[in-house]
Amino acid sequence: MKNRTNGYFHLHHMFRKILIANRGEIALRIIRACREMGIRSVIAHSEADRDSLPVQMADERICIGPGNSGKSYLNIPNIISAAIISHAEAIHPGYGFLSENTSFAQICKDVNITFIGPSAEVMAIMGDKVSARQAMVEAGLPMLPGTPVLHTVAEAQEAAKEIGYPLMLKAVAGGGGRGIRLINHPDELERVFTVAQNEVREAFHDDGIYFERYLARARHIEIQVLVDNYGNGVHLGERNCSCQRRNQKVLEESPSPILPRELCNEIGERAIRAVRQVGYRNAGTLEFLVDEQNRYYFMEMNTRLQVEHPVTEMVTSLDLVKQQLLIASGEPLQLKQEDIQLRGHAIECRITAEDANLDFRPQTGTIERYLPPGGPGVRVDSHLIANYEIPPHYDSLLSKLVVWAETREEAIARMQRALDEYVIEGVTTTIPFHQRLLKHEGFVRGDTYTRFIQEESEALGI
Amino acid sequence: MKNRTNGYFHLHHMFRKILIANRGEIALRIIRACREMGIRSVIAHSEADRDSLPVQMADERICIGPGNSGKSYLNIPNIISAAIISHAEAIHPGYGFLSENTSFAQICKDVNITFIGPSAEVMAIMGDKVSARQAMVEAGLPMLPGTPVLHTVAEAQEAAKEIGYPLMLKAVAGGGGRGIRLINHPDELERVFTVAQNEVREAFHDDGIYFERYLARARHIEIQVLVDNYGNGVHLGERNCSCQRRNQKVLEESPSPILPRELCNEIGERAIRAVRQVGYRNAGTLEFLVDEQNRYYFMEMNTRLQVEHPVTEMVTSLDLVKQQLLIASGEPLQLKQEDIQLRGHAIECRITAEDANLDFRPQTGTIERYLPPGGPGVRVDSHLIANYEIPPHYDSLLSKLVVWAETREEAIARMQRALDEYVIEGVTTTIPFHQRLLKHEGFVRGDTYTRFIQEESEALGI
Repeated sequence: MKNRTNGYFHLHHMFRKILIANRGEIALRIIRACREMGIRSVIAHSEADRDSLPVQMADERICIGPGNSGKSYLNIPNIISAAIISHAEAIHPGYGFLSENTSFAQICKDVNITFIGPSAEVMAIMGDKVSARQAMVEAGLPMLPGTPVLHTVAEAQEAAKEIGYPLMLKAVAGGGGRGIRLINHPDELERVFTVAQNEVREAFHDDGIYFERYLARARHIEIQVLVDNYGNGVHLGERNCSCQRRNQKVLEESPSPILPRELCNEIGERAIRAVRQVGYRNAGTLEFLVDEQNRYYFMEMNTRLQVEHPVTEMVTSLDLVKQQLLIASGEPLQLKQEDIQLRGHAIECRITAEDANLDFRPQTGTIERYLPPGGPGVRVDSHLIANYEIPPHYDSLLSKLVVWAETREEAIARMQRALDEYVIEGVTTTIPFHQRLLKHEGFVRGDTYTRFIQEESEALGI
Repeated sequence: MKNRTNGYFHLHHMFRKILIANRGEIALRIIRACREMGIRSVIAHSEADRDSLPVQMADERICIGPGNSGKSYLNIPNIISAAIISHAEAIHPGYGFLSENTSFAQICKDVNITFIGPSAEVMAIMGDKVSARQAMVEAGLPMLPGTPVLHTVAEAQEAAKEIGYPLMLKAVAGGGGRGIRLINHPDELERVFTVAQNEVREAFHDDGIYFERYLARARHIEIQVLVDNYGNGVHLGERNCSCQRRNQKVLEESPSPILPRELCNEIGERAIRAVRQVGYRNAGTLEFLVDEQNRYYFMEMNTRLQVEHPVTEMVTSLDLVKQQLLIASGEPLQLKQEDIQLRGHAIECRITAEDANLDFRPQTGTIERYLPPGGPGVRVDSHLIANYEIPPHYDSLLSKLVVWAETREEAIARMQRALDEYVIEGVTTTIPFHQRLLKHEGFVRGDTYTRFIQEESEALGI
């Protein structure tokens, strides 16, 4: 039964129908926003997701290919055809898949379908680490001190003196943690540099190497921004995403439990100024590292909705997907910076189908019993249902469990309560790992950093 | 797995263990608060509820009798014994059952167990309609104009002139809607009065009759109050509970969609002043009727937590059960009136096992499939689980679906979305009725009154 009473009909340009080019919990998240806004949703889905909850819940569904995402969720011609056939006026790409694909954004524009995100031009700049850093330097954001490409040991020795030890050696062509080495002492420099140069040449066919300052206990914080098509923008405060495992976030919270409010506000103000300067549009996130002296450095920008957007929604009371749709339809932003107050504390746990005791190996299986937690301050974003068979093709995220409470202490207690309640039977999940993480003294103190989970792996039972 | 990290251990007097003398969603609600506060929960349950979710979730469980509530949930000796045996320091009565039973509160006190609620003395005054009205008149609250007991037609004619037509004829000994007649015109008076007097004498063995002003389109609003053991108190704004069926609330919201803010604040201030004056303690609710000229009249007080407390929680961000436990343990209230702001809009739908097409006849059955709605702004308080067999002994409430949004319009759209999502298979529920109610033009305008559902029954398809 579809209800269409809502408060958006008075907006001339609001979409009547959009296509969702994604799956799982984020597809459901977007369908929910559409429902509440009176927008019809079309889901473009793979064969493997045919019986999934978002496919059941969307107003229309079009199968765009087999389970293999290269042939479905990354299949640009089929997705564009699905949008045209179904008369969708816009496409929401969610996160992952085509959400940061510049050609896809450009093709949407070429066929006169609104891509819900920034323009292809700005996405191209901000999606590339090197050009994004360049643009953000020009826009006035501080970067982690680094060197140009180094060709000889002599150059490297000179550069190392300026940066200081320990330092990170990085490959220009590296990525996903590859081509990175830590150099602790000048004595190691010559040997490591030479070995790395050879390795990098072999691995990437590009021997470009540079140094970057190493942050021993870096905190990862990120700033959520919203900018309308007319350049009006606000930042929605920070998210602390320091709990990571192999650069994958496992738990996020807002506000930061440990950084001074003034510092976070300053980073937020500089971030929104910078993205407005480069002509960024719609929702986006700027990631920063903060060192132990509270110096902060821009790392990269995500030009899309993020997995962890609900923690910002909980503390700001805003609906980011609705904001994305309003902005993409051409509505001017109704928010002013002074309207944005972070209230209380929100935490999100990413519940994945992984076995923390087996190095987080992804698990498949069929959900035998399913009961999400409820009661005050608990939000569940999940596509799980009883008898759901987890397809082997996609990432292992099963559910985002999000809580809100007046204080961080209460939010932790509430999250523990909600994790205890959560029934997901039939597949191994990371619920027990999150239960341990929430009890860890360092986490309770708020003293987390990007290597926290790695360094505390024993205490965390992994 | 029970986590005990929480922020309440520093409170000397906080209970280590409490007993819950209730069942269903409210038992679960109290268990959740206990979990988050590090308090052990003992549930006193009937045989019929042995496998229910709250009994599974409590830290300890004691069976106090058979399904028939007279022999279990109303069995004072067994409940007191259960509390003593389990070393519970306090008893939370929830709502219904023993929650407004003065003897029970007194016995708790006699055996040195804290009753989580007001003192037996104040409960006795406020629990009786006549003495409550007397106390509240003395405390300065306005009452619906009424007469003393009328003995003769002549007395009745005189009194009717003062009150004005139409008027309500009520039996002193009546209750639950019995012994009430509407008199529209002076011509009807003699006949109706004489007939009623005879009827009432036969029905109640008490021929006491009085008149009360009739409110044609009365709005039911109620004020939530919190008072600590030292007399510090706040009111938490109003709930609009005008959507009723046979005096049973079916949907509640906060704030009132139609009454001026200043009026609600005035009622709130007068309510908290009055309850402090009579020495009231803990959470309570004062019910008022408001006429079309925005004159308001005190009706009665509920000296306990109410079914609809979550809407107040959503707009104030407070946890009322935690507040009850803090107050009962002797903590001074940490809230000042100026801290209380109603933010956004919250709506609660009471989902019951009733068939709206068959005059809301209660239904039993086994839940075959169960999936509560999720996503932003949705809260579910429910004891339902797949394969749950609804026992025939208790009231028909299955779930409280509560939503929050920035505006009422958005909250309505969100509630419609959440009702559409809610999967409860195996028993007929009132979800379709709520879907129709939320679309009714009068409801959408906020123009509801206590006879709204009755008068609009055709439009509401009942």
